[in-house]
Amino acid sequence: MNAEKIPDIIISRLPVYLRALQRMADNGLKTTSSQELGEHVGISAAQIRKDISQFGEFGKQGTGYSISYLLDKLREILKVDRIWDVAVVGAGDMGHALVHYQGFANRGFRIVMIFDNDKEKVGKKISQFTVEDTDKMVERLKSAGIKIAMLTVPATAAQGVADKLVQAGVKAILNYAPISLNVPSNVKVQYIDPSTHLQRMTYYL
Amino acid sequence: MNAEKIPDIIISRLPVYLRALQRMADNGLKTTSSQELGEHVGISAAQIRKDISQFGEFGKQGTGYSISYLLDKLREILKVDRIWDVAVVGAGDMGHALVHYQGFANRGFRIVMIFDNDKEKVGKKISQFTVEDTDKMVERLKSAGIKIAMLTVPATAAQGVADKLVQAGVKAILNYAPISLNVPSNVKVQYIDPSTHLQRMTYYL
Repeated sequence: MNAEKIPDIIISRLPVYLRALQRMADNGLKTTSSQELGEHVGISAAQIRKDISQFGEFGKQGTGYSISYLLDKLREILKVDRIWDVAVVGAGDMGHALVHYQGFANRGFRIVMIFDNDKEKVGKKISQFTVEDTDKMVERLKSAGIKIAMLTVPATAAQGVADKLVQAGVKAILNYAPISLNVPSNVKVQYIDPSTHLQRMTYYL
Repeated sequence: MNAEKIPDIIISRLPVYLRALQRMADNGLKTTSSQELGEHVGISAAQIRKDISQFGEFGKQGTGYSISYLLDKLREILKVDRIWDVAVVGAGDMGHALVHYQGFANRGFRIVMIFDNDKEKVGKKISQFTVEDTDKMVERLKSAGIKIAMLTVPATAAQGVADKLVQAGVKAILNYAPISLNVPSNVKVQYIDPSTHLQRMTYYL
């Protein structure tokens, strides 16, 4: 396995396989096939076999994949066999929603701090967190060694905050603002964009 | 063009092309190439050409694609050359965030109503909307002819609400609850799952 050579498009499909396999495990299943997994995720069995085989021989002809073994391997490959500390920037509706979100548990992430530049919000509690001032964000992220941030500020503020995150050593940004971010090539950005998801369905209406 | 024969995986990439092309247009660009578009979206130029050619000959050898023409065509294919009315179910943090979200404008969608089963929330205003009771949701959606809903209720309530949405004639559900929904095969579901997006980046850390 040579990590440098795996195409991004394959990496982007692995979390989808991971989620589907986790659901199968939650439902008590022990083994699965590329056909069955393919039906769950809407990707062809051949593509799934090809994607997974990039990382080794995890299945057996005729008997398929052990779900728990494949889960372990995918978590290891994606580096979510550990817990990553995550910062939230923006203590608005979306920041609140993320702090309260139940879907990070057992997926490899935990929110550890939340920032806002609104002096009215700084110092207020959201769940167990106290909203901190973005003026102190770079220093705080650096000293805590945070590598992952979720950005929920208004579109007009997003690039400025992203620049600060990069300065603080953040390497992965999940961006909820409806704007494209410019970051150095060693920083990853993923976009959460409900319109794109909706547009994937209107085709069929 | 035979709509029945286009694989889902191709359809799922079209909104990503649409978003990137819209950004190029916003930046004043008039034409682009599959190479340039590919660099923006992280998909190979060959794949992009193949995807787009499923629907006709939209580009010219040597001169590339007219951005405005390709935008029009993609909007037509994805049926977002019109405005779809969308209902939000769940008036919590995420419901508020969606009502205030600026990213639906010009993308083919507008929120027209919001529901919650919490009597404390029913009747309250969120932006220009009054939160309505989910008890009246099926009737309201039917009479308004709503085909698209965004689901932001807790995981434990999500399947029950999805059943009601299906009963009301909704054909496309954007699900924010961290749970898999069972719906008839003629109903589409898309999942917004921040953990999956985060896992697409940890691989590179």
